[in-house]
Amino acid sequence: MTFNAPVRDLLFNIEHLSGWPDIAGLPRHAGLELDDVSAVLEEFGRFCAEKIAPLNAPGDRAASRFENGKVVLPDGFTEAYAQFVEMGWQGLQHPEAFGGQDLPRAVGAAATEILNAANMSFALCPLLTDGAIEALLTAGSEAQKATYLEPLVSGRWTGTMNLTEPQAGSDLALVRSRAERQENGSYRITGTKIFITYGEHDMAENTVHLVLARTPDAPAGVKGISLFLVPKYPVEADGTFGPRNAVRCVSVEHKLGVKASPTAVLEYEGATGFLIGEENCGLDYMFVMMNAARYAVGIQGIAIAERARQQALAYARDRVQSRPVDGSSREAVSIIRHPDVRRLLLRMRALTEAGRAMAATTAGWQELAHHGETPETRAEASALAEFMVPLVKGYCTEMGVEVASIGVQVHGGMGFIEETGAAQHYRDARILPIYEGTTAIQANDLLGRKTLRDGGATARRLAARIAQTEAELSAASPVAQAVGARLATARGAFEAAVDHLCSIGRSDPNAAYGASVPYLMLAGNLMAGWQLARSLLVAEAALARGEETEFMAAKIATARFYGDHILPETETQRLRITEGAESLLDAVL
Amino acid sequence: MTFNAPVRDLLFNIEHLSGWPDIAGLPRHAGLELDDVSAVLEEFGRFCAEKIAPLNAPGDRAASRFENGKVVLPDGFTEAYAQFVEMGWQGLQHPEAFGGQDLPRAVGAAATEILNAANMSFALCPLLTDGAIEALLTAGSEAQKATYLEPLVSGRWTGTMNLTEPQAGSDLALVRSRAERQENGSYRITGTKIFITYGEHDMAENTVHLVLARTPDAPAGVKGISLFLVPKYPVEADGTFGPRNAVRCVSVEHKLGVKASPTAVLEYEGATGFLIGEENCGLDYMFVMMNAARYAVGIQGIAIAERARQQALAYARDRVQSRPVDGSSREAVSIIRHPDVRRLLLRMRALTEAGRAMAATTAGWQELAHHGETPETRAEASALAEFMVPLVKGYCTEMGVEVASIGVQVHGGMGFIEETGAAQHYRDARILPIYEGTTAIQANDLLGRKTLRDGGATARRLAARIAQTEAELSAASPVAQAVGARLATARGAFEAAVDHLCSIGRSDPNAAYGASVPYLMLAGNLMAGWQLARSLLVAEAALARGEETEFMAAKIATARFYGDHILPETETQRLRITEGAESLLDAVL
Repeated sequence: MTFNAPVRDLLFNIEHLSGWPDIAGLPRHAGLELDDVSAVLEEFGRFCAEKIAPLNAPGDRAASRFENGKVVLPDGFTEAYAQFVEMGWQGLQHPEAFGGQDLPRAVGAAATEILNAANMSFALCPLLTDGAIEALLTAGSEAQKATYLEPLVSGRWTGTMNLTEPQAGSDLALVRSRAERQENGSYRITGTKIFITYGEHDMAENTVHLVLARTPDAPAGVKGISLFLVPKYPVEADGTFGPRNAVRCVSVEHKLGVKASPTAVLEYEGATGFLIGEENCGLDYMFVMMNAARYAVGIQGIAIAERARQQALAYARDRVQSRPVDGSSREAVSIIRHPDVRRLLLRMRALTEAGRAMAATTAGWQELAHHGETPETRAEASALAEFMVPLVKGYCTEMGVEVASIGVQVHGGMGFIEETGAAQHYRDARILPIYEGTTAIQANDLLGRKTLRDGGATARRLAARIAQTEAELSAASPVAQAVGARLATARGAFEAAVDHLCSIGRSDPNAAYGASVPYLMLAGNLMAGWQLARSLLVAEAALARGEETEFMAAKIATARFYGDHILPETETQRLRITEGAESLLDAVL
Repeated sequence: MTFNAPVRDLLFNIEHLSGWPDIAGLPRHAGLELDDVSAVLEEFGRFCAEKIAPLNAPGDRAASRFENGKVVLPDGFTEAYAQFVEMGWQGLQHPEAFGGQDLPRAVGAAATEILNAANMSFALCPLLTDGAIEALLTAGSEAQKATYLEPLVSGRWTGTMNLTEPQAGSDLALVRSRAERQENGSYRITGTKIFITYGEHDMAENTVHLVLARTPDAPAGVKGISLFLVPKYPVEADGTFGPRNAVRCVSVEHKLGVKASPTAVLEYEGATGFLIGEENCGLDYMFVMMNAARYAVGIQGIAIAERARQQALAYARDRVQSRPVDGSSREAVSIIRHPDVRRLLLRMRALTEAGRAMAATTAGWQELAHHGETPETRAEASALAEFMVPLVKGYCTEMGVEVASIGVQVHGGMGFIEETGAAQHYRDARILPIYEGTTAIQANDLLGRKTLRDGGATARRLAARIAQTEAELSAASPVAQAVGARLATARGAFEAAVDHLCSIGRSDPNAAYGASVPYLMLAGNLMAGWQLARSLLVAEAALARGEETEFMAAKIATARFYGDHILPETETQRLRITEGAESLLDAVL
């Protein structure tokens, strides 16, 4: 199964949805042209298709193993990672000051999708390194930045996030790992961390573990958690590595999917760690980093959907079975000609492209939130981006599971045979709505911090923007008008949900939070559909100019299908939110 | 993870939904009391919990293997199967004349659910034997019945279905296996059959393969397919076995799930076969048998959902994480107290119980279709049962996949670790919407043969019955009235869909069949919800009498949750059906 990076669609989104003029107009991106972006993504797409994607299925079969105290990665991973580092791909969106290319986030997100679609297990290592870079940029001291950022941005060293413990998953208040201050200012870290992605491996010279732990005098709960940097090999003053730190991998998990990626249990036995930022502020830093990581996991959902979609489409074109229902052939035809296979493939495409479009829009706002020129621009973009992160994470990962499952279905019986490859996507996708915060955790964030806290103001600002798009649609073609009508109905459901949740948020938190996932799915569906509606307007204008007729016609068709077949799901969610609390809360389980 | 057979719920459905008075009133079931049924299911539940369920996870880990030309089953399977046979469980619903117990189908279905929930891989062997028995009862000669039925009904011999070939999956017109008539009246069968469940194993003395093949002079397409019986060991006149037949297992598949069940590639190399019924009528017989097999696969969907639900519920009670959103505890609590976990668990329960209720109702109609005392009774029940089979198969298997996926989600990160066991259900469930006809094949059957062929008459008769239930609900409690209102809305969506599909069925088959799966999901949702609404009425009456308050209150709560959270999905499906054709058919893929 070959993989083709969806560069055209990614570029379309960067150009038309991510607010490109504003982003390219930032001083930091002076001189950056879309052609440059295109060249980068094309080259990265080629690299991923040729070097990374072919390792995906064999990596799944071999899986990472723990043998004689060492983690053994599948064949080819170490060599491919070395090439990835050599070509400088890790640094795409990181600061030039530390050796990166400082490309806009929307471009970084596009590259993240390509890499994950090629091989999610492989991509997890750079993804975690991105997270470590983000944390150090946010809260690291100048000395820490000087020591650790350049090797991380180059990819020579990799990063990990150590949050989870056996008793502390979603609930970080229950973290027990201890950090004792030493006379030299460092800390001794002791405890067991589980589910540590790429927690141990030999692909890189060094690994920078970011670890949540408590100092002896820390307050209870989340306000007593600090963040520490624990290098696998401590760096001496002269830049050489000291003896290996007292952190040891004791096993790797036997998982449903992403099997090539080692998920380690790490035992910290008085390891030397260095405080990042201030004591007891670890969770605040972690949240900054988690916003980036959650967004990236949403991208993984889009990536696995894209990979599953490509594979199903190829199979549906190839597989000949049954005569068409309209009698247009007396022989069996490619199954792509059967209406329900068409429906499945269009659903895969619409969900994937809508998720991708939402992610690109969000990346644009993230860029402006960090680098916008005025405080007003930054504040506005920040509120929008923060609202969107749980949607990108929650909606796109749930969507990724569904699309991967449809991919199996399109293959029929062959989909259930592991050698076909469709089943791997179904297994790999299943972690996405769980790690970096389950869908319910995203939904609680969306409802509590992003909606109730500002009384629904950001939600309503987004609704007003959607109404603007509706106005544009109503002035365009009949198809655009039809999509606009669907969008208006879905927006109405969203506004009704926001009003209702804001009215009960304080008085009946169980009812409000019992509706949080339906609210997330409603909002995600709407925001993603909105971006496809915006895309439709762009595509109609391009078609009118006679540009790229095939691509633009497909974009319009996708938006229309999304409008008729997917946007209406918002009304069911609205009912659950506004009328479903009693039956949810009264039942005895 | 322990498993408890849901005997109470199964009995409730048999008593109140399957038309028990009519069934128990049939002469063939004279003297059968519900207490007898209860005793049988309790005993079978104990057997499955103690002997079969413990083999489920180890069987998945070991998987069936093909070694040195032989199929090796996981440890314990052969011994457990011997016990299963010894206790006579295979014969529960089969005729007394051949050693069975002749229990009603609703009871047989309940037992099938229990066995599949305990261990789907194990249960596949008896399930295929049931299919072979059904085929022989339908179309076998008296001599064939005399030779093969008693050993099959006892379980000493097992059965297989050989339909699929590499080029012929959903499309049996493409079957190529050849059958050449011999002078002694037997046939020489040659060809390759794939995906043959339990196609080769040593658990039983003999295996009876039912094989689709073409005679040399057969017409092309499905009208030239004949059905043959190919015994692994031919039976000599004196009842002893002759030398092994020329059918050979060449490999077993490496699958996503049901790994303990061997899925064989069988090579027929001039094997001796015996015609069942008449030449070129194979597909008709196969359809009779497939109705039973499709229904049974629907039961598998309910079974895997039940198993996943029990496991998720136990985990949610046990796992302590995070403080409640309503501030009722300052400590972390069992996650079952978090509203979204409650939502997930109720969704699992509502989908599972609704599917089970629909299956029980269908079994009652199947019983009357076969054994009703008047031709009118049989014809009416037959039409209803035939309408329901694709719903039980299609809706309950799609539901099984969803519930198993929710089961993983409830477990959080632990759900992704294979040792937890939740992931196995997610993998096992995925075959169900595929084999015995994909969901699209079921939907085409529902639309073409069961709806368009009679101009929607059966569909509208069912709608009228639902309206009767609505009238009963409107005369009952406020909760019943609320559920009745939901049911009426869903019925309206169903009627609109039926009207629309009947109006375009001939003129625009692509539009009609492009809506077939949404129609199936709409109809399945409605029919299952209807049965829960009927259950609610029964439960309210029982509560009024002070009977079994806990069980009955839970039943009411389940029906109410289904009404608020699941029935409204029918409206989205209705929109797809009545307004979604253009966007589906116009897009270029």
